[in-house]
Amino acid sequence: MSCDVGLYGLAVMGLNLSLNMASRGFKVCVCNRTPSKIIVAVQKAEEQNVKNYIGIESITEFVAALKRPRRIVMMVQSGAPVDALIEQFLPLLEKGDCLVDGGNEFFENTERRERLCAAQGVLYMGLGVSGGEVGARHGPSLMPGGSPEAWELMKPILVQIAAKIDPSGATPSPGATTFTQAELENACVTHIGPGGAGNYVKMVHNGIEYGDMQLIAEAYYMLKYLCGQSNKQLQATFTEWNRGELNSYLVELTSKIFAKKDSLSDAYLVDQILDAAGSKGTGKWTVQQAADAGVAVPTIAAALDMRYISDDVALRKKMASVYAKSWPAPSQTASASADLARDAARALMCGKICCYAQGMQLLAVVSEKRGWQLNLAEISRIWKGGCIIRAAFLDTMRKAFSANPSLKNLLLDPQIAQTVVAGLPSLKRVVATSLCTSPPVRQEDFPIHLSVPCHSSSYFYLAANATAKLPLNLVQAQRDAFGAHTFKRIDREGVFHEENWATDV
Amino acid sequence: MSCDVGLYGLAVMGLNLSLNMASRGFKVCVCNRTPSKIIVAVQKAEEQNVKNYIGIESITEFVAALKRPRRIVMMVQSGAPVDALIEQFLPLLEKGDCLVDGGNEFFENTERRERLCAAQGVLYMGLGVSGGEVGARHGPSLMPGGSPEAWELMKPILVQIAAKIDPSGATPSPGATTFTQAELENACVTHIGPGGAGNYVKMVHNGIEYGDMQLIAEAYYMLKYLCGQSNKQLQATFTEWNRGELNSYLVELTSKIFAKKDSLSDAYLVDQILDAAGSKGTGKWTVQQAADAGVAVPTIAAALDMRYISDDVALRKKMASVYAKSWPAPSQTASASADLARDAARALMCGKICCYAQGMQLLAVVSEKRGWQLNLAEISRIWKGGCIIRAAFLDTMRKAFSANPSLKNLLLDPQIAQTVVAGLPSLKRVVATSLCTSPPVRQEDFPIHLSVPCHSSSYFYLAANATAKLPLNLVQAQRDAFGAHTFKRIDREGVFHEENWATDV
Repeated sequence: MSCDVGLYGLAVMGLNLSLNMASRGFKVCVCNRTPSKIIVAVQKAEEQNVKNYIGIESITEFVAALKRPRRIVMMVQSGAPVDALIEQFLPLLEKGDCLVDGGNEFFENTERRERLCAAQGVLYMGLGVSGGEVGARHGPSLMPGGSPEAWELMKPILVQIAAKIDPSGATPSPGATTFTQAELENACVTHIGPGGAGNYVKMVHNGIEYGDMQLIAEAYYMLKYLCGQSNKQLQATFTEWNRGELNSYLVELTSKIFAKKDSLSDAYLVDQILDAAGSKGTGKWTVQQAADAGVAVPTIAAALDMRYISDDVALRKKMASVYAKSWPAPSQTASASADLARDAARALMCGKICCYAQGMQLLAVVSEKRGWQLNLAEISRIWKGGCIIRAAFLDTMRKAFSANPSLKNLLLDPQIAQTVVAGLPSLKRVVATSLCTSPPVRQEDFPIHLSVPCHSSSYFYLAANATAKLPLNLVQAQRDAFGAHTFKRIDREGVFHEENWATDV
Repeated sequence: MSCDVGLYGLAVMGLNLSLNMASRGFKVCVCNRTPSKIIVAVQKAEEQNVKNYIGIESITEFVAALKRPRRIVMMVQSGAPVDALIEQFLPLLEKGDCLVDGGNEFFENTERRERLCAAQGVLYMGLGVSGGEVGARHGPSLMPGGSPEAWELMKPILVQIAAKIDPSGATPSPGATTFTQAELENACVTHIGPGGAGNYVKMVHNGIEYGDMQLIAEAYYMLKYLCGQSNKQLQATFTEWNRGELNSYLVELTSKIFAKKDSLSDAYLVDQILDAAGSKGTGKWTVQQAADAGVAVPTIAAALDMRYISDDVALRKKMASVYAKSWPAPSQTASASADLARDAARALMCGKICCYAQGMQLLAVVSEKRGWQLNLAEISRIWKGGCIIRAAFLDTMRKAFSANPSLKNLLLDPQIAQTVVAGLPSLKRVVATSLCTSPPVRQEDFPIHLSVPCHSSSYFYLAANATAKLPLNLVQAQRDAFGAHTFKRIDREGVFHEENWATDV
């Protein structure tokens, strides 16, 4: 009857989150469908000298062991398993208790479950958690969505376990349940908004992550095949990039990956990994939700597409064999060039900004539509630590949204616009070079093409947004001609329709 | 008690479809929520000398006027209005009657309604109709989905009213209900598959249409701003293009649009139309469904994005003013060039093939997943007449799928691959030129940029599919490093995970 919080579901994220909670001064009890994992978890806690950590096999006893109002964090597979678990918990809970789902759940599922629980007076929270295994253990970025009551109840635990932007900065003492302003501002958590807002923001975080990763992958191949960089040189390049405006967890991680040797061969591990990338749904949801909201997210969509294309290995093999011999020769030859490497860095920064601008515009539009009142400056702040997309740029982003909370698109911010303009010639050059030098090399008679869809999508996104005129007047004329869809005019208000488009021919 | 078919919903598509049915020898009764439209419809029929056409105000009398088994085509707004109408009809119908929804309905809604009707023994069909107003009146392309029983019941009417691929070819005599093989092969209709398959195929048709239209729009601006073509010259160019491999309804329509003078000014109408394009959902659904199916449709997605970007006129104005003065100068100057115009035609053909390849791969994958057994050769055939994307290329496509019904991607077909390879240098050149000459002109100090996202997406789609290696090994390494997502190796079977990516640094 004395535990501060219960955590159900001891896969990698749940285990580490529970150890994090106990390390931060809370008495934690854990439970799992397969009891053996409970034993392993308790052993792990002992090994790591984590106190106040108990495992309970029976779900009834697990619930009974919690102080009231109860706080239960569910860390199970999203979808049906969460529904099944809620069904088990609900009869055991009382008014004012709170269920938290820490998985990558689709936001509408959270909203449905929140209503279900509310009918019984039980609070509900959809909690976005980013940072992978290490983040979960030592400080993730947390995106809680739910009622103010749910937030107040969970806040002490979430502030304690969240990543600290400055690890040597203001940090609450373990077990403390009230916090100074400095501690709150240093913790990577904020009340995102009602209902599924936390899940939604986590979804967009992941969508941005897809774009960021694919942009880096494209830069990797430019450096490798246009500049001829070895893994050792790539490691040095990314290490150098990490010292400047590209400073970020992903760029740092990338530099480390290029240094990693394989344990099964004498090659570098990265070269032994099959070029087929999986995905688990949040990138897909971001693209689908953006389409619903009427927001263009071409950089994120291109990243998702590349995962899909890469993963269909059988189709790619057939395609490569059809086009291996017949692909036309490049119109330029590739040449190792320090200029090109510099261009690649600036182009990556430009592409990255477009990717973040797309994700944040989606949040701005959906916040407005759903009345979520998302605080984009606060969201930028809590992504500065713990999560996968943490980067120096997030502080620029936070400042942009602090200066103008209703900024619809990051590209409108004066400082960001300066960086974009400075990088634009490089972005254009690397896309043009990737086009004109393809294929730069052949491997066993199969050409290697440089595909830079995230870079090119970012450029054309910028150009389309910043142009005085787009050729969509023609699209609208076509729509009116075949489907009577009407059009607006540049010189008059109102809606027009032309009855007979063919008469002047 | 003597009508062959009833049609409910007399907006532009319903009115024309009902007149088409009556013209093809069926006794038609029509009904509408607003009775005034019934009067107008009956007048229209008289004006056009269409016999066997009666209007009935009461929905009960409308149903009672139909021969059994009854055939009722609903032409109302998709979504809730269809549900409401079915609720009205169901109590009046008997076992074996058939309800047909001819709107652009989301396929899952059709499947739900089919189950609802089946519980009462009523047949249900989701019917895709393409061809706009003129097509509906004189012959649309029809994509019926539903049970074999529903198809058999509707087939006589659908074969009669469908477009004929060769208008002077085999055409059934009005009122005939059995058909020769030649008549069937000339009619733009086939039983697509069960449930929502007809709606799904129509959705993908429209997605392809989005891509095709945006590709044409991009070619338009290249010709206008890089080759300096006037509307008159544009009209001539598209007329010429329509004589070759690009021959299609949309290219022909485009040539006519450039000839059309404005009635409110002395300008060409296309120049008076605001460059903001709307959309009605089917392009969005295609992008969302492709994401669900794990199929990359970047050309279609880029077209949807351009409609979204174009339509946010307020944001574009702000963006243009931020970037008007600071956008870097082009690295090349634009020069009118006959070569470039030739490149634009070949690039358009290449882009178009990629767009169709994406849409058809989506159909192939979904057919497999859902057990629809879609006949892609037949689908290509019925798009050859009546519909918006009808084009000479559809015959090439039909042949490719006839030769290999399980072809996963059109780009694997030898003849298509030849066209693609021939066009690739042009596709690369126009994308690179669009990049390097941007902005080619300034208008009142605002730059006009060439955005060619559909062309560039098509190129990178090709390159990504046809390359020996993609940089996604890095993405998978990143995923394994931060999220323990595992990876495959190039040299061994199985799934691997590296515990410590950072040790070699």
